[in-house]
Amino acid sequence: MFSSNQDIFSTQLSSLQVGERLSSQLRFIKEIDALKNVLRHTLLIDGSRRENDAEHSWEMSVMAMVLREYFAPGTDISRVIQMLLVHDLVEIYAGDTFVYDEQDTLTQAERELRAADVIFGLLPAHQNQEFRGIWEEFEARQTPESLAAKALDRFQPLFHSYLTEGKNWRTRNICAGAVRKIMSPIADGSTVLSSVAESIITESIKKGYLFDDGKI
Amino acid sequence: MFSSNQDIFSTQLSSLQVGERLSSQLRFIKEIDALKNVLRHTLLIDGSRRENDAEHSWEMSVMAMVLREYFAPGTDISRVIQMLLVHDLVEIYAGDTFVYDEQDTLTQAERELRAADVIFGLLPAHQNQEFRGIWEEFEARQTPESLAAKALDRFQPLFHSYLTEGKNWRTRNICAGAVRKIMSPIADGSTVLSSVAESIITESIKKGYLFDDGKI
Repeated sequence: MFSSNQDIFSTQLSSLQVGERLSSQLRFIKEIDALKNVLRHTLLIDGSRRENDAEHSWEMSVMAMVLREYFAPGTDISRVIQMLLVHDLVEIYAGDTFVYDEQDTLTQAERELRAADVIFGLLPAHQNQEFRGIWEEFEARQTPESLAAKALDRFQPLFHSYLTEGKNWRTRNICAGAVRKIMSPIADGSTVLSSVAESIITESIKKGYLFDDGKI
Repeated sequence: MFSSNQDIFSTQLSSLQVGERLSSQLRFIKEIDALKNVLRHTLLIDGSRRENDAEHSWEMSVMAMVLREYFAPGTDISRVIQMLLVHDLVEIYAGDTFVYDEQDTLTQAERELRAADVIFGLLPAHQNQEFRGIWEEFEARQTPESLAAKALDRFQPLFHSYLTEGKNWRTRNICAGAVRKIMSPIADGSTVLSSVAESIITESIKKGYLFDDGKI
């Protein structure tokens, strides 16, 4: 699971005059740099290239700051942001799963569980528990914070697809029914964002970005 | 200052059934996507390419979560993270300023002030004030939170330079004296990280990544 340069990095990190605890933390920070190489299907808004998971996590964290008034009252935005910052780390080993790929999503949970053991396991014990807890809370979608984070995780690529004239939908023959189904968790986190999502879908059909297959 | 596709995006955004306030917020979110195209001099740890400001902001936000025990007691990590998430937004218009470029740093403050007016000015009034306040606090380096954020902002590229065998230093003839000077703000935010930084510099000299010009 580790890169071939792992030995060099290990030597470099162990040469530093730091204790075991800090050394584990630096090793984790080194390892998560790989998130910048996990490509998503979402395009940048200027259409120039696909974005990666690190960029996606950053953008959604800022979105949480900007759009926090549209989440349930009392939602802890600091927790939402921490969730968004780490929710995709498992994809360093498990890969990005395209939400519209049914085969891929079947094996997603198992792949991500194993990845979580590896990536969060690099941290000192109590931080392993803490980070894993944040990730598990996100996945379980039971708290207002995780519902808000999940709403953003669905809304962000929709927003990009709209502004890039539906290129991702058109090249993959994804129709309005599938988009509405994938976007349905937004309503659990934010009625306002859910109504913006519906407006985006309606406009996308009107503008020819998205084919309306009549499914709801 | 805006891209040539700005008219298309404006039409797309104004077609959505949302009020003025949410429309401003979506416009801001659209605009900050450009941070993903602002390249830094720092390389990814695998050495494959330069990182961009969005990736840098994400990585440091996670670093703040992992390394928070090394900041002053009582430091509000949520505020540190919010600072790290937005501190480079001004570079969308002002560009990245290479800390070792003395000419470039001379004009940096003025360029960034004008950029702050534009980027934060896209937000509704009270959020404009809030985001600008976070950025100004970061720049002023008077609070524990801003000192912690600044320490990470200097430590992160040092960590990458070390793990990429000093390629950035060697190709630009940057010597140990200059690196020590640039890294000095780390000590204001964290004595532990400052001592790791010194260990990285010492090891970099020993390993031939960094030339020791004898300046302290």
